[in-house]
Amino acid sequence: MKELRNAILTQGQGIGMDIVKVDMFLNHRLDTGLLFRMGEELARRFREDKPDIVLTVEASGIALALTCARALGDLPVVFAKKSATVVQSADLAQAKVYSFTHKRENVIRVDKKYLPAGSRVLIVDDFLADGQACQGMLALCAQTDCKVVGIGIGIEKGFMPGGKNLRDMGIKLSSLAVVSAIEDGKIILADG
Amino acid sequence: MKELRNAILTQGQGIGMDIVKVDMFLNHRLDTGLLFRMGEELARRFREDKPDIVLTVEASGIALALTCARALGDLPVVFAKKSATVVQSADLAQAKVYSFTHKRENVIRVDKKYLPAGSRVLIVDDFLADGQACQGMLALCAQTDCKVVGIGIGIEKGFMPGGKNLRDMGIKLSSLAVVSAIEDGKIILADG
Repeated sequence: MKELRNAILTQGQGIGMDIVKVDMFLNHRLDTGLLFRMGEELARRFREDKPDIVLTVEASGIALALTCARALGDLPVVFAKKSATVVQSADLAQAKVYSFTHKRENVIRVDKKYLPAGSRVLIVDDFLADGQACQGMLALCAQTDCKVVGIGIGIEKGFMPGGKNLRDMGIKLSSLAVVSAIEDGKIILADG
Repeated sequence: MKELRNAILTQGQGIGMDIVKVDMFLNHRLDTGLLFRMGEELARRFREDKPDIVLTVEASGIALALTCARALGDLPVVFAKKSATVVQSADLAQAKVYSFTHKRENVIRVDKKYLPAGSRVLIVDDFLADGQACQGMLALCAQTDCKVVGIGIGIEKGFMPGGKNLRDMGIKLSSLAVVSAIEDGKIILADG
């Protein structure tokens, strides 16, 4: 997606070997117009797969999931939670995920009644790196007998194994931009 | 807002004396169409105040902030973070807030460069109870020399002190629905 690629190249920052800092438009400050166009593009790519729920994980996945769900005709969004709440359901689907960003293990959880058995789920997230969050969401969908029709990603780190692992599982995975490397603080994007 | 009131009364659940459980449409599963209409209504109430940034706090405030920002002409959204990240800025505005939902103290933080001095900030959140999150966001805006032009809330717990305290400070605060009490598991809404 050309506009996202331009935003990454002009506003993003490469740090070290593997960190893509885009918090000026994607995960701290949100460029609202761009987020909507990203959601529309993901919707275009997955409309044929007829999802009826968009699943993401808090917090920074919520914006892209919501704009994608809007473009798919106001589908409901479900976001998995990273922390227990006082009033949470007793009937939860849960999965362990290691957060690359925060360098710690989280449990993500969803109230099972919000992923009814048989639902066609589109997983959406802002970033894909080692794929832990997506694998966790796949586990949630397995526990609730939902069908995952695809995974839509904002920015994939192509030099990390998450994308390849998911594609090797036969999952339809589509990323709006793929970072192939970070070299001397410069973000290098894959073609296409 | 009539549609939100209906959603609260038909889908919401009152628990104990003070818990309003609306996670089937507002903060775990999102009713996408409703969220957009809520955002449009907040935008209608605050357009005259000419905000140029919408500020919220992760995670469940993000959806309403984004739909409101969309309706205000694609304003940027900034969401305060509850946890430190590996790549965060050294130049942060920070404030302590006690989470009523999670029964613990959090520090919320914003990279100062995303709240430029002189910005006109509209604070948006899904819930207002004791007002800790809003007070924390006011503190962030004070540290960054931003002007808070108003606070837009999805659901206010009118029996908690947060709303009164903010109004007593002279802040323009508008809530789309106000819960006046919970009686035997039934949610009672204030008029209007």
